[in-house]
This record gives sequence, structure tokens and C-alpha cells, in this order.
Amino acid sequence: MKTRDRFDCISPIDYRYWDDEVARHLSENGFTGYKLEVELALVAALVHRGICSEEVGKEVAAACVQVTTAEVYEEEDRIRHDIRALVNCIRAKVSDRAKPYIHMTATSNDIIDTANAARFKKVVKKVLIPSLTALERVLINTALREAETVQVGRTHGQHAIPITFGFAMAGYVSRLGGSIEALKSLAVGLPGKFSGAVGAYNASSLFFDDPEGFEAEVLAKLGLVPAECSTQIVPPEAMTRLLCEVTVAAGILANLADDMRHLQRTEIGEVGEEFEAAQVGSSTMPQKRNPINLENVKSCWEIVVPRIVTVFMDQISEHQRDMTNGASIRTHPEIIAYVVHMAKRLARTMKKLTVDHANLARNLAIQKGLVVAEPLYIILAALGHPDAHEKVRMLTLQAQREERPLEEVLADDAELQTYVEKMTPHQRQILINPQFYTGIAAKKAKAVAERWKQKLGL
Amino acid sequence: MKTRDRFDCISPIDYRYWDDEVARHLSENGFTGYKLEVELALVAALVHRGICSEEVGKEVAAACVQVTTAEVYEEEDRIRHDIRALVNCIRAKVSDRAKPYIHMTATSNDIIDTANAARFKKVVKKVLIPSLTALERVLINTALREAETVQVGRTHGQHAIPITFGFAMAGYVSRLGGSIEALKSLAVGLPGKFSGAVGAYNASSLFFDDPEGFEAEVLAKLGLVPAECSTQIVPPEAMTRLLCEVTVAAGILANLADDMRHLQRTEIGEVGEEFEAAQVGSSTMPQKRNPINLENVKSCWEIVVPRIVTVFMDQISEHQRDMTNGASIRTHPEIIAYVVHMAKRLARTMKKLTVDHANLARNLAIQKGLVVAEPLYIILAALGHPDAHEKVRMLTLQAQREERPLEEVLADDAELQTYVEKMTPHQRQILINPQFYTGIAAKKAKAVAERWKQKLGL
Amino acid sequence: MKTRDRFDCISPIDYRYWDDEVARHLSENGFTGYKLEVELALVAALVHRGICSEEVGKEVAAACVQVTTAEVYEEEDRIRHDIRALVNCIRAKVSDRAKPYIHMTATSNDIIDTANAARFKKVVKKVLIPSLTALERVLINTALREAETVQVGRTHGQHAIPITFGFAMAGYVSRLGGSIEALKSLAVGLPGKFSGAVGAYNASSLFFDDPEGFEAEVLAKLGLVPAECSTQIVPPEAMTRLLCEVTVAAGILANLADDMRHLQRTEIGEVGEEFEAAQVGSSTMPQKRNPINLENVKSCWEIVVPRIVTVFMDQISEHQRDMTNGASIRTHPEIIAYVVHMAKRLARTMKKLTVDHANLARNLAIQKGLVVAEPLYIILAALGHPDAHEKVRMLTLQAQREERPLEEVLADDAELQTYVEKMTPHQRQILINPQFYTGIAAKKAKAVAERWKQKLGL
Amino acid sequence: MKTRDRFDCISPIDYRYWDDEVARHLSENGFTGYKLEVELALVAALVHRGICSEEVGKEVAAACVQVTTAEVYEEEDRIRHDIRALVNCIRAKVSDRAKPYIHMTATSNDIIDTANAARFKKVVKKVLIPSLTALERVLINTALREAETVQVGRTHGQHAIPITFGFAMAGYVSRLGGSIEALKSLAVGLPGKFSGAVGAYNASSLFFDDPEGFEAEVLAKLGLVPAECSTQIVPPEAMTRLLCEVTVAAGILANLADDMRHLQRTEIGEVGEEFEAAQVGSSTMPQKRNPINLENVKSCWEIVVPRIVTVFMDQISEHQRDMTNGASIRTHPEIIAYVVHMAKRLARTMKKLTVDHANLARNLAIQKGLVVAEPLYIILAALGHPDAHEKVRMLTLQAQREERPLEEVLADDAELQTYVEKMTPHQRQILINPQFYTGIAAKKAKAVAERWKQKLGL
Repeated sequence: MKTRDRFDCISPIDYRYWDDEVARHLSENGFTGYKLEVELALVAALVHRGICSEEVGKEVAAACVQVTTAEVYEEEDRIRHDIRALVNCIRAKVSDRAKPYIHMTATSNDIIDTANAARFKKVVKKVLIPSLTALERVLINTALREAETVQVGRTHGQHAIPITFGFAMAGYVSRLGGSIEALKSLAVGLPGKFSGAVGAYNASSLFFDDPEGFEAEVLAKLGLVPAECSTQIVPPEAMTRLLCEVTVAAGILANLADDMRHLQRTEIGEVGEEFEAAQVGSSTMPQKRNPINLENVKSCWEIVVPRIVTVFMDQISEHQRDMTNGASIRTHPEIIAYVVHMAKRLARTMKKLTVDHANLARNLAIQKGLVVAEPLYIILAALGHPDAHEKVRMLTLQAQREERPLEEVLADDAELQTYVEKMTPHQRQILINPQFYTGIAAKKAKAVAERWKQKLGL
Repeated sequence: MKTRDRFDCISPIDYRYWDDEVARHLSENGFTGYKLEVELALVAALVHRGICSEEVGKEVAAACVQVTTAEVYEEEDRIRHDIRALVNCIRAKVSDRAKPYIHMTATSNDIIDTANAARFKKVVKKVLIPSLTALERVLINTALREAETVQVGRTHGQHAIPITFGFAMAGYVSRLGGSIEALKSLAVGLPGKFSGAVGAYNASSLFFDDPEGFEAEVLAKLGLVPAECSTQIVPPEAMTRLLCEVTVAAGILANLADDMRHLQRTEIGEVGEEFEAAQVGSSTMPQKRNPINLENVKSCWEIVVPRIVTVFMDQISEHQRDMTNGASIRTHPEIIAYVVHMAKRLARTMKKLTVDHANLARNLAIQKGLVVAEPLYIILAALGHPDAHEKVRMLTLQAQREERPLEEVLADDAELQTYVEKMTPHQRQILINPQFYTGIAAKKAKAVAERWKQKLGL
Repeated sequence: MKTRDRFDCISPIDYRYWDDEVARHLSENGFTGYKLEVELALVAALVHRGICSEEVGKEVAAACVQVTTAEVYEEEDRIRHDIRALVNCIRAKVSDRAKPYIHMTATSNDIIDTANAARFKKVVKKVLIPSLTALERVLINTALREAETVQVGRTHGQHAIPITFGFAMAGYVSRLGGSIEALKSLAVGLPGKFSGAVGAYNASSLFFDDPEGFEAEVLAKLGLVPAECSTQIVPPEAMTRLLCEVTVAAGILANLADDMRHLQRTEIGEVGEEFEAAQVGSSTMPQKRNPINLENVKSCWEIVVPRIVTVFMDQISEHQRDMTNGASIRTHPEIIAYVVHMAKRLARTMKKLTVDHANLARNLAIQKGLVVAEPLYIILAALGHPDAHEKVRMLTLQAQREERPLEEVLADDAELQTYVEKMTPHQRQILINPQFYTGIAAKKAKAVAERWKQKLGL
Repeated sequence: MKTRDRFDCISPIDYRYWDDEVARHLSENGFTGYKLEVELALVAALVHRGICSEEVGKEVAAACVQVTTAEVYEEEDRIRHDIRALVNCIRAKVSDRAKPYIHMTATSNDIIDTANAARFKKVVKKVLIPSLTALERVLINTALREAETVQVGRTHGQHAIPITFGFAMAGYVSRLGGSIEALKSLAVGLPGKFSGAVGAYNASSLFFDDPEGFEAEVLAKLGLVPAECSTQIVPPEAMTRLLCEVTVAAGILANLADDMRHLQRTEIGEVGEEFEAAQVGSSTMPQKRNPINLENVKSCWEIVVPRIVTVFMDQISEHQRDMTNGASIRTHPEIIAYVVHMAKRLARTMKKLTVDHANLARNLAIQKGLVVAEPLYIILAALGHPDAHEKVRMLTLQAQREERPLEEVLADDAELQTYVEKMTPHQRQILINPQFYTGIAAKKAKAVAERWKQKLGL
């Protein structure tokens, strides 16, 4: 094993998308650290209650910093139990006097589930949310900068009516902001437990009149609260909800990445991923400039989404627990690791994204006349035309057939002249210049961006 | 088509698990009703703003009650657009004077997404939550009634240490209660929209200085609030979160069903599904009493869980929207329909569940001595034994090998006598009578049950 | 229930995408028919073996044609067992003399699993494969017709090097053809069973020395073979594999739909969904021509794919069977129903797809010079240039920077002139006319199309 | 990075379930090796065709063995393209004369997809199938050894009628055998490609009249055949089918694991996982003997199954390819790695599985009388009783109510005596001794086991 290196790994999260910030919490080494913290919090509470002496507390604290994952695994190879192995490793480093207090009254999952709550809470707060917020900041800045940049709106991949590029960004500012807020509150709510082997405080009741108080005390040292009612394990719902929201966030990032990579299509060219001087686009087509970062973000979403099914499967544990989710729960951290990677990569890409104003204008002009079919129909309707939608639909077909601007076809339509005369100058203006038909896009882009800037303190 | 009956359906949600209460909101007829309500709310707001007269409002209201899904589908067959078909059907029932105001400034998804928000909110509040609450009530009653009924706790399908049956129920009371609360708040938060074809209020800005105010006005008539920022569609996250929580609830029900059906195994027999007098268990084995209701609940969970992936896929919609989620969004109601079915079926089953106290006692006794290995090890440790866990592990192996009670083996162990002498009478008591080793199970069962009884006003 | 109509359905497969051809096999009525066929085959084999008389056989045959799903459900409501209900309905229609032979030695799943094998085999052969083959025929014709139509190849949404439109089609001909072949062989292999309640032929052994022979006899009447070894149920793998392949086919259709709808983007416009004269594109934007059929196909794929997880979950059945897949197995037919819908809709759409040759040529020209970067680099390399890829990459950057054709930049590059001189006329030709750089696209398009035309007898 | 160790990994497939045999093919180092083999095969074919000299071939071969993943990643960091980085690393190790021939006419995915086909084919053949076959051997031996060991059959977790333990094993022998055969043929069929950047042989056509022949030549050196028609990539269906079958195999293993762990329930105790002398069952309950290996197998299945959805998502690649599956395809090897782990762990566990004959007999006796309800009803029916099933159902209810053996209740039933008198001695025998009512279980167990022993040459 010693000779294994990074590239002997099988999962891309380890050999390719590995991230130091994430690994500090979610690697096996990180996990060991959190489990040791929990074992230590337990002894600290025993000290506080006078069950054991302060010296014992200090001995255990000193022992815990020395335990390594490697030695725990070695011990586990011998006795085939992960937490007992951890306990043995601590015990081996303390005096006989201290030994009995290590893991006292605890069951394995008092340690595991509490350590999981602690580390997921921390990694979400310290790594995932900051990564998403860094992206949010970029989006806010883009929304403000491009608030007035007119872009054709697209539905079904077809030109619809105009918006502004900043407005499109503001939509993502709002969606991502909402997910950041949701993640914050879900991470805070992750509960721990110290209720023993079947959740009824059987062991701790042997020593304490208020075993629930004792549990709360241990968990408070870790900044956690207890589950209302646990079995051998913490009820899985809080973690499930957190991972659902992480998946929701992934969906927002993937949607944004999809939008941006389609806007980079050769024929559209409204935005561009910055290319480094030395960067190669293709091993055989030297001219290629591919949106590989955006594609990567979408692809990571394809990794993440199906895995929520594993999380839901892991929600089921028979009776006071079975361990048919023992291995699979170990894969939950990967979900967060991938979404952190997505957030960081997308933030970098969006920060350097170039917006091509010339192409935006060119594309808006492609169907000039037709884009105003909507205001034309609505104004006609408002002016009393009884069948405005159908009338305008026929006009657009005629315009397409005759390859003439809609404006011209309209001018030639005798029936509609009485309506045209009743239009306000502003209304007539819009029918000629679709770039004015952007509703409150610019204003809203700014308002939404400013609101989230404040809310997140950016 | 006329001759189609219930059994010509392909989906079991229609031919077998169909529920009238659910269908009122989630069938296609139900959906038509909600869409008409939205179109009507729009006209009502136009009346209120003086854009059209009260007479027009009345005409439209009268028309809406007459529109049938069948005629909308017929019109859609002609023009290939579902919402325009709906609009045409309303228009056909009003005077030319009223025609222009129908659907005015709206895009299809102003209607569809708002109707979806309204009906999902309603079905969750009026059908799903009441169904889950009915189950919760049964669980609370069982938890209280069986709070003191000792049962062996099971981990890994193996006997662990004792709890009470009521305590096991209380765990589900707590988990299900938490999900009911979450569903309530998520349903309330479902937003609608009236921001037009690309979300920038392009059309409504032609008429109103405060198009966002107008949107809020229309939605308020339906008890909804607007999305902070929409495109052609409402951002999907609120609905995604709701459906995640519905799936979370399904997981809780499935976990309970799994627990109960395993407790019905012939060899365990701690609980029983009530059998009706005429009920047949097997087409060929007349003696069979199968837990088919519990199995059905678990099986519906297998239907529900993977479908959350469709929901997450549907979160992605390109640019101002594409319709690659158009058909799939139509399957979201099925998720709720299945979970309502699960809740109702499980409530019925749990209500009639028989608890076999004799078998509970018999099973607890199977490993009598071994069950107290935990308290023995912990008491020894607390009394200063430096290697209590390993010592007791060896004793249990000896007890199993010699087929003797652990108690007896303990009495024969010379090394341990000094510790035994130091034990309190209560501690010695527990080592002989595992039924006393239930921690605070009974007390906690009652506390949790009472808390949720109050919280949900049951 | 009587008053329920199509639009009271909750699932879109019933109220919207329902198909008569599919329902004949996969609706609950269809299923009843198949189950009756199986019960009848059993009695026919008993007759053949002389266990009962031919008169009994005739009585049962006459009874079976009269049984309706509605009466079976009514009986099931009373006795809570679906197959016993079916048996009771047949029994009620025959003389006491015939009664004992109905369902004799059979367990419920001898009937259910055998009926499922029979109907899935039939619906795949009679409906799914013909639907896919109809699409295949359209693709073959398009591949042949457009074999020479040059189109720019696209990777990462960026222009790469040219192909022909027919060649792109041929890729789908090959993929879809392969899936049709796979479906054929998997459908044929679906086994049935008649091995009784736990698969050991316990009951039939009471009557026959060769119970496996008897099983084979019953199944042969239905065109099926027995599973090699069954429990109460047929091992699920054959059905799982079939449904995997149905999902594979869905992926091919979705990929094609995606390609075609992106080629319809306003800026690209290489193909078009035909629009009917009366068709409305948007409820508010009368000019819209949306690729709704292609979007629908993709969306149905989003329904289908996650459901394969339900199929895999249903693979697990404890011991000789449990029924935690009882409800979920009932949803498997929906997978096939959706894919039939996808195939039919896509065939209709592809048949009327317009290919815009002018836009194809226009798009190919956008990056004219750059498209030939690949042949330039490869020819240079073949002529001995030691760093051709990097050299050409720099040239393309220069061409983009200076907005000049690559050809011109090349002509100005002193270093490369010695290489250019060594090029053959054909090689120089290609560097100027990218439309000649299509490899063997046209030839291969024809060859692949012709091969599948023959293979499938089209 | 240098300091990273195994426990800095985030995925359990790397820090916990990593397997040397698997990593040789599926780690990033393994992948580099396969990609180098493909680049080398290309040059070898160029040599063979006389495009370059044998010396060039030797130079490249010598260079390839020196390239390390670490240096490729370093180069990729600089130029942002993985395959160009690999090519540069080879080029840096050869003379200028050899440089042009490296990667000549190839596109990145000619290398990647071909390397993937080669390594998946190899790992399935050399690691996965042998692991599954080792398990199959254990199952065959158990089936033969326990062919006559009577066990009660269980449906719905309830006692049904008897089988033998060997027969239950034979069911798995048959299912697993079928999957091994399927894997073999799917692995063999994995195609590679050498058709260039868009699949039309654009580049290779510049040099060869028969570019398809050249492709076949390169691939033949790797033991592969070409895809019938490719784009930039090999059509994904062959790989998708292979991974579906790997998932099918996982389902069979999980089903077996589930069966075995339920048979280990404290109350059932028919089988046992062997416990090592030093093994700890619980960190707090020293007596516990948990079926952790079987639980682990089931849990790995929960990891594997949802990931097939990623595989199906990755089936879609726009036009000649996009890279929205670039990262996710990198996770496909994990599926195989987990299933190899499952197979090896399950083989070890099943090999040491103890079968408790005493408990098997005890459990069979629990419902003695009731188990024969089926033969009783069938014999009565065969003897002409017109309503045998209902009659026997009533008798079993009576037996349960009065807590008397069914046999006794039967003897007291006046109506049935005429039938009893007509029974054969053998039939009467079975009604008293359910252990004789096992059909052909023993015979079939042996036949199935022997058949697969031969088929797989075990």
C-alpha cells in the first residue's frame, strides 16, 4: 500500500478532482480527526461531571492527537470493527487508570453519526457555501455590469422576445442565493446523538439521572444538538435533506453551465470561455476552442444527481439499525466534493467569461420583425381586436413566406390600419425597435443583484 | 376513446391505486380546473385595475365553469398548443367584447406554473398532510399504549439490548412529525408567476407601471406569492424541494413498513396484520397470512424514490426555458399520489396491527444472558476494570460454547468476583433481568408522543 | 368509478400519451386477458395428460372468454387476493365437475409471471419493434437521400470538420438497428414458469413423474420456455435485461431528438419540424415555431431512465419471494409504453423533417479557413514537419486575431512554403475547399443504410 | 500532492475497498498504460503499411514504456488537454524523425474510447468474471452438499412449503451463471474506433484508400473490432449494455446477501457468518455476531444501482460529440470495482458460511400442520372436492384458533373422511411429514449445480 500514489486511485474525485480544502473534512483522515474529537468530547463531559479526573481528560486529549488512520486500519484488520479499533488505539496510548473512560457508555454510532454531523456541518459552512458564494459574487457583478445589455430571449431554443444579459444572470443570482440560504439552515440543523446502542440511553442511564442532559452536554462541546429521538443511529432525515439541497444547488450550476455553453456555439457566439495562450482545444483540430469547463460542470451534475437515490435508499435501516447502508453512507461525502468542484470551476469560468456585444446585437436582429409579434398582438387585443393572436400568427406566416419584415407586412394590412392609428408613439416605437421591448429587465437585474449582495454581505 | 374504462389504463396509479381525493387536484380534469382559476384570477385583476369592465369579468367567470378538459383536448388536437386551446375554449364562450381580455399579457407558463403551484399547495395541505397526520395519530396512540412493553432491540437483525415497543414507535412519531412540519412550510412557499414570455414583464409593462405589483395582485387572488425572479417559468427549486420532502416522507413510511413486516416473520411473530374473515393469503397455500399491505407500502417506495431523479432532471431548462421537461413534469403528481396511497394504507394497517406480548417476551428471553453483556462490560469498566470489553467478549464466547447463561459463567469467573462485590443492588438486578435494562425508553416514548400530539393538535 | 373518464387519470400515460396498440397488451384489461390464457393453457395441458376430460377443457375455455377485469376486482375486494379472485371468477362459470381443475397445482405467480412473459414478449414484437423499425426506415431513407449533403461536424457545440447529413443519420441507423436486434433476441428469451409455490414442483410432483415436462408443455402452448430454475417467481434477470435494452433504445431516440432540436435553433436552422397550418407555437408569441415533438421525446426519456432503478430494485425478492416489488412491477409496462410513444412521435417528426441546404452551406462557411486546420496539420506532419500541431495552432490564433482566412495566413508564412510546395494537388484542393474534406462520409452513409435496409428487410 | 496517502482519499473505493487487481486496469495509472498501448498500436500499423520505418516504431515503443501519468498531468496542467499532453510526453522522448507519426490521423477519442474498450474488456475477463466464478464455485459446492437438507420455503417472510437448502442455492447458481455468460459475450463485443475527429475518416482518408481497413488493422493489434459507425466517439450502447449486466450481477449478489443475512436473524439462525477469534461484533455489545459482510454486499449494491442512471445519461452526446459526459464517464470504472469487491467478499463469506441443520429442522416444525395445507387442498381437489381451497382455508383457521395440528383437525372433520380414504399411502404420508413435501428440490439442485459446473469448467 505504501507505494500507492494519487494515480493508483480509481475514482476521479481522488486522482483528478481532489481538493485539499474538501479533503480536510471529507477524506478518511479528516473523518478520523472528527471521530477523535467526539471521543474526546465524551471524556471531557465525563470530567465535567466528575466521573473521571482532569488528569484522565488530559491523558486522553494527548493520546487523541497521536492516533493515525493507518494504525486504526491496522487494528481493524485484526479485530474487524472500525470504532473498537479506534478506541483500542486511544486506549493503547493512555494509562490503565484512564482506559475505562474512553468510549464509556457510547455505542459506535454515537461516535460515527456525531462525527458525520460535525464534519458535514463544517464542510458545508467552511467550503461549500464559500465556493457557491464566490460564484454568486461573480454572477452579481455580471448581472450589474450587463444589466442593460440587450439579448434575445430564447424559449425552445428559438428566439422569443428580448431580455438583457444581466437579467438572465439575475435569475441565477436569485436561484443560487436561495440555495445558499437553504444550505446554511440545513447544515446548522444536523443533529448528533449520544443515546447508546439502541437509542434508549440504556448504558448512560446506569450512571446519570438525566442521560438526555448528558448527551446534550457532550454534543454542545461540538456545537451540535441532539436528535429528538434516535435509535442506534441519528434519524437520517436531516442529512438527507441537506444532500437534497446540495443536489438542488448542483442543478442550478448545471443549468447555468448549459446556458453558457450553448451561447458559445459557433453560430451563436454570445459568450466565450477564456482560452489560455498555451491551451490546446483538440488533439487533432488545432483551431478548436471548446467550452470544456462548462461541459465538465454539467458532467459532474450527471455524477451527482443519481447518487441522491443512494442517499434515499440509505434512509432505510431496519429496527434499531442494520448496516445495509454501511458502505454506501461512506460515498455521501463525494456528493459534496463534486459540487464544491463544480462551484469552484464554474466561478473561475464565469469570472473570465467574455460577453460579445456585437454578436448579441447581430443575433437579436436575425428575426427582427417577428420578435415583436407578441407586443403587436397584445396591443391589438388591448385596442379591441377580437382575434388578435390568430391575426398576428397569420401575419408572421406571411412575413416568413414573403421574406419581408413583419413591420412592412403590417403596414400593408388594410384591416389593421385603424388599430395602428390608435397606438401610442411608444407602442409604435416598440414595434419598430425590438431592443426597447425588454420590459423591466434592466431594472430587475439590478434590484435582484443588489438584494443578494446585501443579503450575503458581499 | 369514449369506451375506455378504468381497466384500459396502463398505470397502476390509475387502474388500481387511484384515489378520488387526490384526483380532484392531480388528475388532468383537476388541472384544467386550476388553470381556469388562474385565467379567471387574471381577468379579475384586470377588472380591478379598470382595464376591463365588471361585466367582462362576469362573462369570463361564467365561461370558465363550462369549459371541459375534453373540449380543450379537441381544440388542442387542431392547433397543437395546450394553453392556446384552453384560451380558445374560454373565448368561444364569451362576447367579442370580452375576448381580448382573456389571457391578456400572459404567457402559457404564467398559467401552467401558477396552476401547478396552486394545486400542489392544495393537495399537500388538504390530502397528503392529513393522510400522514392520520398515520401519525395512530403511531402516537400506539407509542403511548405500548410505552412500557419491553421488546428486544435489534441491530444488524441480531438481538442487541432491550427497548420498549412504544419507544420504537416514538422514533417514527418524531421522524414523521418532522416531515409533516417540513411539508407544511414547503407547500406554503410554492411561488407562482405572471411575468410573461421571458420573465421580464415585457407584455405587462405595456400596460402597467408596476408590472410586479400587478403580478402580485393576480397571484394573491390564488393565495400565492410571486417568484423573486422568473424566466418563462417559475424557478423549479421550490417544487423540487417539496418533492424531495415528499420522498423523504415516503422513506419514513417504507422504513416503518419494513420493520413491521420483519416483525411478522413466522419465527418472530411480534406483530400481525389483521386478516379479514374472507381474506385469502395465497392462491395455493390456504394457511398463508402475508403482510401484503406493508409489502405494498415498501414497493410503492421503490416506485417513488427513483422518480426524484426525473424531478432533478426537470430542474434544468435552457435559457428562458426549453420544453425537454414538458412531458416529464406531468408525472410529478404521481409521486404525491403514491405517497398519499402509502400513507392511507399504512395508517389502516397500523391501526389494526396486533402486538403479540407473549412472543415479545419469548423472543427477549432467547439470548437472555447475552443481552446484558453491555451493562456488564460498562459496569466493570466503571469499577475500574482495564479491559472490560475484551473480558466480557471472552465470557460471551464461553457462554455460547458451553451453552450456559452468561450469569452463570460470570459467577464462576474468579477474576471478576471483586468487581461483582462492588456492584450496587440495582446493577446486579439488571444483570439478571434484562427487561429492566431499557434505559429511559418508556419515559421517552411518552414524552415524544405527547409532544407531537400537542404540536399537531391531535 | 363508473363515471371516471380519461381525464380523471393522474398519469399522463393514461390521459395524454395512451396508445391503443400498447394498451391491448399492457393495460389491466390486457393483463387479465393474458392471465386467462395462462389458466386456460394449464387446463389444456391437464386435458392432454388425461387428468381431466375434454369437456372440462371446453367449459373452462368458454368461461374464460366471459371473465371481465371488473368482476375480478370486485371479487378481489372481497377476498383480498388478486389471482384467487380470478380463479373464483372462472370457477363461478363452470360446473362443479370442472372446478377442481382450474388453477390445479399452480401458484399465483405461475400465472402472473407467465402472463407477464407472454405479454411483454408480444408487445415488444408486435408494437415496440415495429414502431422503432418504422423510425429506422425513415432514418435509412434520409441517410440515403442526404448522403452527399455536406454539413459541418460539431464537437463541443463548436464547428469541427465536415461530414454529410446522411452520414450523421447513418450513425443513428446503426445504433437503432443494433438495439432493434437486441430487443428481438431478449424478447424471445423471456421465460415463464409452472413450478409451484416455491419453485420445487411440490404440488405438480403429486401428480406427475416429470413435473418439469408438464411445465414445458403448459408453457409451449403459450410459445414460452421455462426458466432454468425458479422460486415462487421467475428469476427477474431476463425481464431486467429486456427493460435495460428498452432504456438503451430510449437513449438513442433522445440523442437523435436532441441533435435535431439544436439544429433547429434560430441561429442554426439546418432542419425544421414541419408546422401544420393551424398550429400555434406559443400562446403569446404568434411567430414561434417550437420543436415540441423533439422536446417531448427528450422529456419522455427523462421519465424512462430513472425508472430503470425501480426495475433493478425489483430484482431483489427475499427467499422464495417477498412482495416488496408487487406494486412496483406493475409500473414496468409504463416504460415500454413511453418508449413506443417516443418512437412513434419521433418517426412522424423525422418523416416530415425539412433539411435546409442553404443554411447548411452558410454554416459550413462561417469558419471556412479554420475547419481545414486539421488536414493542414496532418499533411504538414506527414511531410515531416516536427511540430505541426503547435505550428497550426499558432496559425489559427493569428488568423482569428487578424480576422483573415487561414488560407491567406498560410500563404504568408515563409517557413511553411517548402511544405506547401510538396503537397499534392488534391491536398491543396482540400485546404481551399473544406467541403471536399469529408473523408468517406457519403460512401459510408450509403453502405450503413443499405446494410440495415437488408438486415431488417425494409 | 506528493504527501497524499491512501487515507487522504475521499472515495471509499480508494481508501477502503481498493483492490490491486482492479486498479491495474481501472486506476488512472492503468488507464495511461492502455492509452499508450493504443498510441503504440497506431504507430505499429503505420510501420506495417510502410508509412514510417521500423526504427520509428521501435523508438516509439521505447518511449511509451517511460511515460508516467504524473508527467502527463503536468503537461496537461500547462496545455489543458489530456490526450495532447500524452502525445507531447511521447514526442518528447523520440527523435524529430519519429515525432510526426505519433497520434497521426488520430483524434483524442480514437485513443480514449479504444483504450476504454480494451481495459473494460480485460478487467471483465481477467478480474470480474473470475471473481464471480469463484463465488459460483462456492454456490455450486453448497448446492451439491446441501441438496437434501430440508428447509422451509418462505414467501412474504412467512413459512410456505418446504424446499431444500441446496435447491435455494441452485437458484442462485442458475442466475449467477447466466450473468457470467452474458458478461462474457458483452465484454467481447466492446468495439474501438479509429475513424478520426468526426467519425468520417477525414484524416486517414488523406493517406489510405481503405481507411476502414486501416482502422481494423490498428484495432486488431489490441484484440478489438471497430464500431460499425462512429462519430468522434464509439457509440455508447455496447458499454452501456455491459454496465447494465454488471448491475444485473450486482442485484443477484445483493439478493443472495439479503437472503443469507435474514437467515442469520437471532430468531431464525439457519446460517451463520464465521467469526474470527479476535473479531469484535460491537463497540459496546461484546456478544454481538453481526452479518457485516452480507450487509456490506447489500450496501455496495445501493452504491452501484443508481449509478446506472449516470451511464444512461452519458449515452447522450450531442452531434458528433459533446463533453457533458467527460467527467462522468470517468466514474464508470467504479461500478466494476464495487462489483468485484462484492463478489470477492461474498465468495469469502459464503465459503465459510455455516448451515445450522438443527435450526433448519426446528423452524420447519414451527407450523408443521399448516405447511401441508397446500398438498391437502390439491389432493382434495384432485379427488373431486368442489371447493377444496376454501375448505382447507377454513380448516387452517380452525387449527390456529384451537392451537391444534392441522392433521388432527382434519381427522375430526366428518365431511372429509371419504376423501381421506381415497388417498394413496404416499399422499397420506406427506400430510403427516412435511419434510417429504419437497417436490423435486433435491434432484433439481443437483442437476442445476452439475450443469453449471460443466458449463463453466469448474
